[in-house]
Amino acid sequence: MKLLETRIQQDGQVLGADVLKVDSFLNHQIDPDLMAALGQAFYDSFKDAPITKILTVESSGIAPALATGMAFHLPVVFARKHKSLTLKDNLYTAEVYSFTKKTTNQISISTKFLSADDTVLIIDDFLANGQAVEGLIDIIGQAGATLAGVGIVIEKTFQKGRKLLDDRHIKVTSLARIQAFEDGQVVFAQD
Amino acid sequence: MKLLETRIQQDGQVLGADVLKVDSFLNHQIDPDLMAALGQAFYDSFKDAPITKILTVESSGIAPALATGMAFHLPVVFARKHKSLTLKDNLYTAEVYSFTKKTTNQISISTKFLSADDTVLIIDDFLANGQAVEGLIDIIGQAGATLAGVGIVIEKTFQKGRKLLDDRHIKVTSLARIQAFEDGQVVFAQD
Repeated sequence: MKLLETRIQQDGQVLGADVLKVDSFLNHQIDPDLMAALGQAFYDSFKDAPITKILTVESSGIAPALATGMAFHLPVVFARKHKSLTLKDNLYTAEVYSFTKKTTNQISISTKFLSADDTVLIIDDFLANGQAVEGLIDIIGQAGATLAGVGIVIEKTFQKGRKLLDDRHIKVTSLARIQAFEDGQVVFAQD
Repeated sequence: MKLLETRIQQDGQVLGADVLKVDSFLNHQIDPDLMAALGQAFYDSFKDAPITKILTVESSGIAPALATGMAFHLPVVFARKHKSLTLKDNLYTAEVYSFTKKTTNQISISTKFLSADDTVLIIDDFLANGQAVEGLIDIIGQAGATLAGVGIVIEKTFQKGRKLLDDRHIKVTSLARIQAFEDGQVVFAQD
């Protein structure tokens, strides 16, 4: 998606070998018009699937997921993160390891909001090692729901997340695909 | 706002004397069409102010704040919550006490995203004791920015938050104002 790639080149900050900071438009300050365009792009990609629900994880996933829910006119559910859960009643839970923070969080969703009748589109801001998406897929399995696919704002193709999903034949739409960071510059993958 | 009051009566759950659970449309599962209507209502209420930025706190504030940012075509900044901050460089921070959880969190915003040139509209999902909004107002003060007003999805008029803001002559627009819970039912304040 050209609009997003241009924005990443203008406003993204490359930190070290594998970190891209996009806190000026995606995950601390948010550009609502850009979010609406991302939501529309995910809609265009997945509109032929019989989706009933959009699923994401707090907090950075909420904005692109809500914009996608607006395009589909479908409910958005965000999983909550907890260091440890004291109450697991009526919750689906999964463990998510963060390579960046080197911590494990539990994510959880109330059983009220996901069932075997649902067909789910996962939306997240980043796909790197794929741990958050794997946790959401685990929860979708617990609910007996169907996974329609995964929509990612920014994918880092050089980390293992995309391969994990491709190996399972899951449809993935990434709006920007980053192949490498070279001399502090972003190199996008050529489709 | 009639649409919101009707939704609260249909889908809200009153728990005990002062808790309203609205996780089916506001803060766990989100209704995007309702969010768009709330955003439009906040726009209608504050459109004559020279607002430059929408401010909220993760996670439950993000959805109504983003919808409001979409109506204004203005950037949304969400404060991050931390139990304790190791790095305070280039951050505005404030302490926020949660009466529900009986814990104190720090909230923080990068100094990059708020300055003396900004006129800010605060959006949040609930106004009860007003601690989160007070924390955001503190941060707006640290930045030397101007507060245009506060937009609240659901206000509990019987807790002290609204009075704190009225005493400081801050414009507050609450889309639903709850006066009491009686026999498990919501009683709305008559304007």
